[in-house]
Amino acid sequence: MTEVRLDPYQGRYARRARGMTASEIRALFAVATRPEIVSLAGGMPYTAALDRDAVADVTTAVLRDSGPVALQYGGGQGVAALRERLVDVMAAEHLEVAPDDLVVTNGGQQALDLLSRLFCNPGDIVLAEGPAYVGALGAFSSYQGHVIHVDMDAHGLIPEALDETMAALQHAGRTAKFLYTVPNHQNPAGVSLSRARRDALIERAERYDLLLIEDNPYGLLDFKGEQLPCLHTMAPERVVYLGTLSKIFSPGIRIGWAVAPAPIRAKLTLLKETADLSQSNLTQYVAERWLATQPWLEQVEEFRELYRERCDAMLDELSRHLSDICTWSVPTGGFFVWLRLPDGMDSKQLLPSALQARVAYVPGRAFYADGSGDSEMRLSFCFPPSEQIREGVRRLARVIRDQAALRAAMYDATAQQERTP
Amino acid sequence: MTEVRLDPYQGRYARRARGMTASEIRALFAVATRPEIVSLAGGMPYTAALDRDAVADVTTAVLRDSGPVALQYGGGQGVAALRERLVDVMAAEHLEVAPDDLVVTNGGQQALDLLSRLFCNPGDIVLAEGPAYVGALGAFSSYQGHVIHVDMDAHGLIPEALDETMAALQHAGRTAKFLYTVPNHQNPAGVSLSRARRDALIERAERYDLLLIEDNPYGLLDFKGEQLPCLHTMAPERVVYLGTLSKIFSPGIRIGWAVAPAPIRAKLTLLKETADLSQSNLTQYVAERWLATQPWLEQVEEFRELYRERCDAMLDELSRHLSDICTWSVPTGGFFVWLRLPDGMDSKQLLPSALQARVAYVPGRAFYADGSGDSEMRLSFCFPPSEQIREGVRRLARVIRDQAALRAAMYDATAQQERTP
Repeated sequence: MTEVRLDPYQGRYARRARGMTASEIRALFAVATRPEIVSLAGGMPYTAALDRDAVADVTTAVLRDSGPVALQYGGGQGVAALRERLVDVMAAEHLEVAPDDLVVTNGGQQALDLLSRLFCNPGDIVLAEGPAYVGALGAFSSYQGHVIHVDMDAHGLIPEALDETMAALQHAGRTAKFLYTVPNHQNPAGVSLSRARRDALIERAERYDLLLIEDNPYGLLDFKGEQLPCLHTMAPERVVYLGTLSKIFSPGIRIGWAVAPAPIRAKLTLLKETADLSQSNLTQYVAERWLATQPWLEQVEEFRELYRERCDAMLDELSRHLSDICTWSVPTGGFFVWLRLPDGMDSKQLLPSALQARVAYVPGRAFYADGSGDSEMRLSFCFPPSEQIREGVRRLARVIRDQAALRAAMYDATAQQERTP
Repeated sequence: MTEVRLDPYQGRYARRARGMTASEIRALFAVATRPEIVSLAGGMPYTAALDRDAVADVTTAVLRDSGPVALQYGGGQGVAALRERLVDVMAAEHLEVAPDDLVVTNGGQQALDLLSRLFCNPGDIVLAEGPAYVGALGAFSSYQGHVIHVDMDAHGLIPEALDETMAALQHAGRTAKFLYTVPNHQNPAGVSLSRARRDALIERAERYDLLLIEDNPYGLLDFKGEQLPCLHTMAPERVVYLGTLSKIFSPGIRIGWAVAPAPIRAKLTLLKETADLSQSNLTQYVAERWLATQPWLEQVEEFRELYRERCDAMLDELSRHLSDICTWSVPTGGFFVWLRLPDGMDSKQLLPSALQARVAYVPGRAFYADGSGDSEMRLSFCFPPSEQIREGVRRLARVIRDQAALRAAMYDATAQQERTP
């Protein structure tokens, strides 16, 4: 049975003590943006693929037709016309909701922050996949939520692992505020929750009276354009659904949203007003016009093709150079591959050598609140072109193989014979 | 001596119990936007005065020159080029800071929210002028800060009232986390802190080791274009300065900022990243280009003239119809007049009659955390044209005079003789 450790160093300072600190991650990204470095670290969509003339036309039309309103304060729930268009976006994933069911937020991150603010009192337990999106962990920790991870495999979150965690919690007389999950092309693990597991998870949400937060930034970026049913569709009253335009249009406009049962939605709207009064009316109107007048689904298909090709390049190069000593996830969409190093090798300790070899990644520890992830790392294929990705993986492979050889030399008397120069 | 009451109903639920709830204020604004109503309620700048073609040109240029970056994620502190331009904005108020001294936020409200998050633990005491900006009170209450008001008069916050509060706090063994103040053309009181009082306030900040939060949305909107020194200029290490482009350009782009001593600034940047990753790069680049290429100070002068004329209309009409029974502040800039009703008349109870007479305002209670403000109200002159403002004041005057007459009839046997139809 999983042991639930309620560490005294929980909450606000947990990641500082055990994972990677926010400043460490910032420092990493600062180095990773240097031109000589191939960055497999950031999760930035390839915005250069957007038709910027079309965005300019849309913006000009918005200012011409609705200038004074687009440049004015807005309401806490978000522009009604945009919410209607966001309903269309969700319909593309077979999710049927009404415009009034959602609250527009400053990107998906703000929805996570407001939900944490609403639900997390200091010491409250929050469940999340292990590994989990670093921004979500940051939001939960910021309100001193105590994150307990639930194991995943190639088919996503393992229902039996959730059973063990819930039993351990019950044993400790505790409950969980919610379970946070990214069912489609998870960040960082690069896996999706299978159909059978979706049923199993919903069954458990009912059984354990557990609220689910379903974060779905990558659902439309399945390489085959396939979709499994959203958890929200399966149990609307048990699930808060989070969407965003960051990966299918632009993160620079900061448009995310939350679909939630009425009482939660009302509270989120009030919290949104307290947090920043309202979302930018200008970017809301631009997003509305983009979705209403532009072939946005074609743009999504273009992104999908682009990322599929880059993912193939990464997987191919990984197979060529690391298949004997590493394992990794095989994404069917999204932005990320999750790589496991040879036993005992530490991805955070390896980072300086990687940066020296001009390649960057995010060490696995950043994605756990409990200090796990030493031997794992996240590789992004979303931003650099395929040839750069291949070069980056080759550089990384050399660093890993060198390190493996060094370790072998240090720890194994017979290492010299096994080394391949 | 001021009695410091540490009410058990402090913090999160205080405003619900004693002031106006957020939902009540929302309901008011919903009614106030009906076309037949003259709204003196909202604090919306007159964005129709902006040159929207110029905004469209600026946006087109941004997308042409920096499209992929403007549509991308940004950093937590904000776009460096924008921060350089914001330094120019502050220089127009004789405030000298460096671009690295500031953090860009989602409007000024987010700065208030993040500062509350940084400083307020449940039950912590926060000082604010009485009355104070409703959004600031909301932010402090949201983190269960306990607001104690410090009295104002026509020259702004009264230093001796602060002395009394600090003595009472000391007597109770308590300290205050900070003092929140809007020194220029305060929202809602419509008064400015005099030069002598600025010196006195800074002297007290030193004496009491008190951090000041100086919120300055209206500083450049002095009707004569005059400026008193910013508190931040007088004591940079004691003051967190908040600025915004909402009143001098557009609230729809949601660009605010905080200037803070280095340790606070670093924490605000991290909190900003947790809250929503980053500000919209698109609106940051638009704001940067607006400030860099457009005659933005001329636009500010145009706003200033517009608001001065509207303020004059409001003051003139108030003098014509209410000078015998009401008193009000005489603004030298900004958006607001603060009106005091005849003794015993309640502005919240009066609101339904006012709405029936097709005029809206915000009852004074919304601007106090402690249940004060019954006989006060905020009148905005920023949005409706002068003729509408005059009509609105005439409608309001009729409602107030009717109410005064009714009260006289009810409470005074001689009332019948004094009534003027």
